[in-house]
Amino acid sequence: MKVKNILGERFKERAFDIESQNLMTRGGYMKQVGNGIYSLFTPAKRIQNKIEKILREEMDGIDGQEVLFPVVMPATLWQSSGRFESIGKELLRFKDRGGADMVLGMTHEEAAVQMAMNVAGTYQKYPFMIYQIQTKFRDEPRARGGLIRVREFTMKDAYSFHTTQEDLEAYYDRCYRAYERIYARAGVPEVIAVKSDSGMMGGKVSHEFMLLTDIGEDSIVICPECGFRANMEACDAITENVADETLEPLTEVFTGDAKTIEEVGQYLSVVDEKTCKAVVYQRNADDSYVLIFVRGDKEVNETKLTNYLKAEIHPAVDVENANLAAGNIGPVGLETKATVLFDRSLVGATNLVCGANKPEYHLSGFTPARDLPETTEFLDLCKAVEGGVCPNCGRHSLTVRRGIEVGNIFQLGKRYTEAMGMTYDAENGERKNPIMGCYGIGVGRLIASVCEAHHDDYGPIWPITIAPWQVEICALRIDNEDVKNAAEKLYRELENAGVEVLYDDRPVSAGVMFSDADLLGAPVRVVISPKTLSRNAFELAARDKSFREDIAIDTAAETVEAKVREMIAAVNAKVPERL
Amino acid sequence: MKVKNILGERFKERAFDIESQNLMTRGGYMKQVGNGIYSLFTPAKRIQNKIEKILREEMDGIDGQEVLFPVVMPATLWQSSGRFESIGKELLRFKDRGGADMVLGMTHEEAAVQMAMNVAGTYQKYPFMIYQIQTKFRDEPRARGGLIRVREFTMKDAYSFHTTQEDLEAYYDRCYRAYERIYARAGVPEVIAVKSDSGMMGGKVSHEFMLLTDIGEDSIVICPECGFRANMEACDAITENVADETLEPLTEVFTGDAKTIEEVGQYLSVVDEKTCKAVVYQRNADDSYVLIFVRGDKEVNETKLTNYLKAEIHPAVDVENANLAAGNIGPVGLETKATVLFDRSLVGATNLVCGANKPEYHLSGFTPARDLPETTEFLDLCKAVEGGVCPNCGRHSLTVRRGIEVGNIFQLGKRYTEAMGMTYDAENGERKNPIMGCYGIGVGRLIASVCEAHHDDYGPIWPITIAPWQVEICALRIDNEDVKNAAEKLYRELENAGVEVLYDDRPVSAGVMFSDADLLGAPVRVVISPKTLSRNAFELAARDKSFREDIAIDTAAETVEAKVREMIAAVNAKVPERL
Repeated sequence: MKVKNILGERFKERAFDIESQNLMTRGGYMKQVGNGIYSLFTPAKRIQNKIEKILREEMDGIDGQEVLFPVVMPATLWQSSGRFESIGKELLRFKDRGGADMVLGMTHEEAAVQMAMNVAGTYQKYPFMIYQIQTKFRDEPRARGGLIRVREFTMKDAYSFHTTQEDLEAYYDRCYRAYERIYARAGVPEVIAVKSDSGMMGGKVSHEFMLLTDIGEDSIVICPECGFRANMEACDAITENVADETLEPLTEVFTGDAKTIEEVGQYLSVVDEKTCKAVVYQRNADDSYVLIFVRGDKEVNETKLTNYLKAEIHPAVDVENANLAAGNIGPVGLETKATVLFDRSLVGATNLVCGANKPEYHLSGFTPARDLPETTEFLDLCKAVEGGVCPNCGRHSLTVRRGIEVGNIFQLGKRYTEAMGMTYDAENGERKNPIMGCYGIGVGRLIASVCEAHHDDYGPIWPITIAPWQVEICALRIDNEDVKNAAEKLYRELENAGVEVLYDDRPVSAGVMFSDADLLGAPVRVVISPKTLSRNAFELAARDKSFREDIAIDTAAETVEAKVREMIAAVNAKVPERL
Repeated sequence: MKVKNILGERFKERAFDIESQNLMTRGGYMKQVGNGIYSLFTPAKRIQNKIEKILREEMDGIDGQEVLFPVVMPATLWQSSGRFESIGKELLRFKDRGGADMVLGMTHEEAAVQMAMNVAGTYQKYPFMIYQIQTKFRDEPRARGGLIRVREFTMKDAYSFHTTQEDLEAYYDRCYRAYERIYARAGVPEVIAVKSDSGMMGGKVSHEFMLLTDIGEDSIVICPECGFRANMEACDAITENVADETLEPLTEVFTGDAKTIEEVGQYLSVVDEKTCKAVVYQRNADDSYVLIFVRGDKEVNETKLTNYLKAEIHPAVDVENANLAAGNIGPVGLETKATVLFDRSLVGATNLVCGANKPEYHLSGFTPARDLPETTEFLDLCKAVEGGVCPNCGRHSLTVRRGIEVGNIFQLGKRYTEAMGMTYDAENGERKNPIMGCYGIGVGRLIASVCEAHHDDYGPIWPITIAPWQVEICALRIDNEDVKNAAEKLYRELENAGVEVLYDDRPVSAGVMFSDADLLGAPVRVVISPKTLSRNAFELAARDKSFREDIAIDTAAETVEAKVREMIAAVNAKVPERL
């Protein structure tokens, strides 16, 4: 294809803060149509088609069957699983011309069960996996970052069905490996799997695949010592307390206006670790209060709290109404109707400062093991921290990084098959519900994430396996007959050899041509100009600057083709074997 | 793939009247999710993927650029063209979580203009064509026939932009040819292009591509003599009247209760051709009346009438209120506020019977040329008929057939670019609106139409270029070691050779296996059984019964592969050259 024929304009002005959005806008990859809704120009669609091909091959490689579910579904289908009621406004609901309630698919568990229902009635039909690549719509309140978080997106979603948990787990492992292969084939082998919280999907074991980048929305906890990795939301927080030799008695101390941990600590010259703070939330449903006592230096992980309570919560807005002494709340002698919880960061702690449940006073000498009832349950409700204890190897080695989720896999269990009444005849004649797994990858977000992880100041540096074009020929001074003839010959030869080649024959300056080439991001560039011809050569250069050399004109096509093959092989060398 | 692993059940019971819907349901190709909304199982998705590949190659072959528009669009975009208001309930409108008006894309002219706007501002950027393959939703009141007429469907839609009408026309011809190639490659070279009415698209020249079948919703007028073809809605209706030698005077005749043409004709012993009837419609908008006089044997074509009036209409429901003598309405001495139109079937007619505008009386001797004002305009408002005059060659040769529309192309002109204010700088410096063409093919409907045109009582007979699998191996008596070994060897060999092969190794009867194979429709079948082995052979048969022969075991894989290549070549031999 010729650069001059690509619809879309490239420009220099920085338009957005997030670099992938900035570069993909400046490079003519996409155009916003509405809030969180984009049209994709040809360069982006070519990347998407290549990723879809990889997805198909890898899903077929683990015995997946490609199917197609609808974008628009009747509400009755979502009512059958209970999610029509339980999911918030992300699920877009509307009525059709006949007044029937409909939804736009944001995920397709219900559709997968509806498809498999009645056609997988005996154990011999299991296991099987069905997948689709289809448009989804999620009415996000905060679309952001271009294709990073949108409302409409293309997604590969897969659903497997099993008769035993063991079989699900074995298949889950195969899919996990398929995902590693997908990211490696797409040129981002650095994507890591982390244990995740399964949230609304309702399963037990799940993993997110994360590309680490500072603009990521998720916090990832990593142990470089043992390889442990988890989403902050799903990472056990371990706190080590060393008991003081002498236990002091509980003693009321005057603290005046000091209310925050910081203020109290300063007032009493006590470090945060030797305090116990109260954090107050309210349930969204009825505004009832939830009170959590944690060690003063810890932060509550709201996802863990939500999962424990099985209720949505928000930080308390009017503690005064709760009949609580805000700033002086303590675990001893507390009288309240609130749900009171204790974090396990308090286990083994001694001689802490805590609130005294009356204004201007705190208690010192609080030792939970002595001062709380023996039946007190200590829960894991806090966030893991940088330098904290690894839940796997026990070293003080945790680091916390930001990441973008570029895929996820869930062991769903029977959540949907039970709710929707899908059954099969087991070998012993029993009617049973199949066990499900589900596996998703958002295509557009993956594209933007690759750009986020692989770019320089001038544009995206696409891995050769997903680049819109593998090679760009830059013909500088197309008015020069020799340049023109040489460039067109190479263009023809490369096209005939099946190389995906972009040809820039516009009569523009080298500056314009190269900055456009940087934005279009072809991994290999061939420059043909009067200068290179005077050296009896073309210039061959890598978009990532890993090479730049003169090549012989006569054998240029073969040299370029070999280079492309070599670069593809280098990507594929990092792809692990299938399970 | 093994038959036993395909999700979906095949069954014998006839479930629907339309054969493609019946066979594709019985064959496990699809499942209804809601009214006009289907999920596709793997066999159908494989056909769809193959058709999409053909579509991409042919659109790329005429310099198309693949892009992606959104399914969900803001209403503002459709307001900018005026269609948010002008289109009926087929356009599904709803509000998002923020209360913004949105629509589901049923076509993407607006999105195409939005994409091209601001990035094609000078004449040098033209022409260009952008296309997508994407889900569409059209809230049809009458979904029917399985995938024939649905609400949600996958469509290839393309939009070209030009600076001159000549350039559009030249591109239109290339696209016309590309469509002929697409249908030929999909194994239905019998698809014909017919002149069509452009309806709501608002363009001038347009064609529909029709697959002729009795279940089609459209009437196609064909002249076998000269090759003329048109949709009934767009076909000029020509009526030849031979003048009587003697013109009779206008005479009132008593006709009593006779009101319909049939009754009046019987009462007066006059053939329909010698009568003039009145047909009454009302405009939807204000119920105002429209009165059309036509020769008694003709039928009004409501599409022609709608186009002439530029208003939606319906047959009149309360003629009495119009102050008209229902059943006795005539063109002479008529006093009415209705719009009165005359069809050109009356031109040259003589001595007709028509209404006298009073109860129980008609007029005889009506000769329009004599009895109507000289300024009377005669319009083309009637349907062409079987045996009628061809508007192209003038012979009495017309035949009328039923067809399914499997694609359409339109010369849109400036309808959208003017409304949305898309302009470019012409060579002479003027700001001009680009001229557009648009080109659509519904993928699911094409699949169903191919099935409708190519099936027998036992299942679809898929053309080899779009069949879900090219070959099916039927291993009868899989408990026989020789059968099993021979079948598995062939399966491996064919898979390694890149043949798309389905393998049935279920321990089922020959009857079950063959009826499933008929429903799955692989064009080539290899039967391996103790009986064939005793003949030292496999049996090779065509789904369309064009061959059935024993083949040598040793060279079976090569023989099958050669047969597949030969069948593909036979399809491709009918594909015309690109323009």
